[in-house]
Amino acid sequence: MHAITIPEAGGPEALVWAEVPDPVPGEGEVLVDVVASAVNRADLLQRQGFYNPPPGSSPYPGLECAGRVTDIGPGVSGWQIGDEVCALLAGGGYAEQVVVPAGQLLPVPDGVDLVKAAALPEVTSTVWSNVFMISHLRPGETFLVHGGSSGIGTMAIQLAKAVGATVAVTAGSKVKLDFCSELGADILINYREQDFVEEIKKATDGAGADVILDNMGAKYLDRNVQSLATSGRLAIIGMQGGVKGELNIATLLNKRAAVTATSLRGRPAEEKATIVAAVREHVWPLLGAGHVRPIVDRTIPMSDAAAAHRVLEESSHIGKVLLVR
Amino acid sequence: MHAITIPEAGGPEALVWAEVPDPVPGEGEVLVDVVASAVNRADLLQRQGFYNPPPGSSPYPGLECAGRVTDIGPGVSGWQIGDEVCALLAGGGYAEQVVVPAGQLLPVPDGVDLVKAAALPEVTSTVWSNVFMISHLRPGETFLVHGGSSGIGTMAIQLAKAVGATVAVTAGSKVKLDFCSELGADILINYREQDFVEEIKKATDGAGADVILDNMGAKYLDRNVQSLATSGRLAIIGMQGGVKGELNIATLLNKRAAVTATSLRGRPAEEKATIVAAVREHVWPLLGAGHVRPIVDRTIPMSDAAAAHRVLEESSHIGKVLLVR
Repeated sequence: MHAITIPEAGGPEALVWAEVPDPVPGEGEVLVDVVASAVNRADLLQRQGFYNPPPGSSPYPGLECAGRVTDIGPGVSGWQIGDEVCALLAGGGYAEQVVVPAGQLLPVPDGVDLVKAAALPEVTSTVWSNVFMISHLRPGETFLVHGGSSGIGTMAIQLAKAVGATVAVTAGSKVKLDFCSELGADILINYREQDFVEEIKKATDGAGADVILDNMGAKYLDRNVQSLATSGRLAIIGMQGGVKGELNIATLLNKRAAVTATSLRGRPAEEKATIVAAVREHVWPLLGAGHVRPIVDRTIPMSDAAAAHRVLEESSHIGKVLLVR
Repeated sequence: MHAITIPEAGGPEALVWAEVPDPVPGEGEVLVDVVASAVNRADLLQRQGFYNPPPGSSPYPGLECAGRVTDIGPGVSGWQIGDEVCALLAGGGYAEQVVVPAGQLLPVPDGVDLVKAAALPEVTSTVWSNVFMISHLRPGETFLVHGGSSGIGTMAIQLAKAVGATVAVTAGSKVKLDFCSELGADILINYREQDFVEEIKKATDGAGADVILDNMGAKYLDRNVQSLATSGRLAIIGMQGGVKGELNIATLLNKRAAVTATSLRGRPAEEKATIVAAVREHVWPLLGAGHVRPIVDRTIPMSDAAAAHRVLEESSHIGKVLLVR
C-alpha cells in the first residue's frame, strides 16, 4: 500500500507519499481500507520530530480515519467485512490501509457521509473525555473553549450546547467568531482585541467559567485560572503556548478548582476503548439526530498531505481539514 | 461567655481570652458548650491577619470543637440537648460556646472520649474530601502525604491504610517518621536528608504516587508533579511553601494527571454538610471499630491558646494540639 512517510523530520515537505508494507491485523484488530483521514495538530509535531508515536503503533501520521473493514483478526466480534466505520488511531491514518484495535472502531453515524466521518473520532473522543468524563460539564454551567473555530472547538461548542451549557469561545477573527455563533456559542471573544479574563467575568456577572477547554498551555495558564468559577475545572489538551506556566495556587485554592492535562494518543488501548464506547453511547445519537455535525473546512488529496499541514499552520481554517484518497 | 479574641493581629501574644457576648443559635443551628477545640494552621494565619473568617461566621479562631448540645434553634432535627458531639466550624471554636449549623455536627464516635473528639472534624473532613471524594484513592494505589506526622498526616495515613493503599510519608525527623511507621506508613522519607521525588520513584519501581496530599503549595509543586504516577492526582490543601509555583504542563499532560486545590473553611454550608455526612458514613465506623484513632500531641488550657500556637510554630508536635476548658 501507500502511506505518508516522514523520512526526515521537517516542514510540510517532509511528508512523502511512498510504497510501504501492507499492515496485517493481529489479535483483537481490524483492517480498514482508508477512505479519508483528518489532520490534527499532533501530526504537525510528529512531522517536526517532536511527538513520536507510542511504542507498537504505526510510524505514519494520522490519528483518525474513515473507511471500510476489509479484514478481521482473531478474537474480534461485532464487526463484519464491508462495514463502513470510522476509528480513533494511535497513528497510521495517512495511509491506504490501517490496522485498528476493535475497541477504537465506531460505525459511521446515521446521516453522516463516509468521508466526513473521518472528522469525528479525535474531536468527539477528546471533547467527550475531557469536558464530560473528566470535567463533568453540567447543564446550566458556563463552558469556555479556546480556539472555538478549530476542529476541537467546533465540536466542543455543539456538544456543550447539546447538554444545556452556556458556551463562550475565543477566536482570532470575526469570521471565525461568526461561525462559532452559528454553531450556538453565546459569548464571543476576539482574543486579538479583547482580554478573555475580563470578557468572561463581564458575561458571567463575575462568576467565571465552570469548565475551560484549553489548547494553549503555559501562555494561558494564569489567565485561565483567573477565569475559572468556584469549583471550576481547567482541562488542558494542548501546549501551543508553551510548556511551563506559573500556577497561582492561592487562586486555585480559593476557588477549590482543578487543573487537568491529558492527551488521547498516549492512553492504553483499554482507556481508548472506554472513551470510544462512551462517545458511541452519548455523542453518536446526537449526530444521528442532526443536533451535532462534523465541521469540515476542506478536503485535500492524501498524497498532498503537505498542503493540508500548511493550512493548519496558517490557521485560517474552520473545523477539520480532511485527507481523501 | 469567654472566647479567644484577636484585638490586633500579631504573634501568639495577640490571642486574648476575653469576655464576649453569648452566641444564640439561629434557624438550622445548634448551640454547643465547648469542652475542647483544636489548633489548625489556618488559625495561625488568622491570628496574623492573613486569613479572615468567611462572612457571617464567628470572628474568633477555631475550626472544630467537641462539647455538649445546650440549645437547639428552629428547624433542627436529629439532635437533642445534652448530646455529646464534635463539629466542623467556620470559626469560633476557641470559646466557651459556639453556634454550629446542624449539618456540621457529628456524634462522638464509639470508643473516643469527648476531649479527643475535638481532634477529628477538620482532619477527617479534609482528608476524606480531598483524598477520597476528590482524588478517589483506591485500594492498591500508592498515596503520598507530606507532613505525615501532622494532624492531617496522621489521619491521612490511617484512612489510606484502612482502604488498602500503600502509604508514603515525608517528615523532618526520625521520631516523626517512626510514629508514621507505627500508624502503618510503608515508605518513610526524611525530607531533610532525602529527595522525595527519587525516593518515591525508587519505592514504586518508577511508577510514582497515584495520589499526593500536599500542604506546601508552590515549593513542592514541580516535584509533586514529577512524583505523580500516570493518571495521578495532586491535592493541595496548604501553601506553607508559597503561593506561585511553576507547573510543567507537559509532564502533567504526559501523565494525564490532575492538580486540585481546596480549602474547607470557605465552602458553603451545604458542601460542608455533604462532606460531614460522608465522613460520618465512611470514617466514623472505622473510628468506632478502632481501626482509626485521633492522634493527640497534647492538651493545653484554652485560655493559654498562645502556648498552643507556639507549639505549632515550632513544629515539634505529632498529631493534633488540643485546647481544653
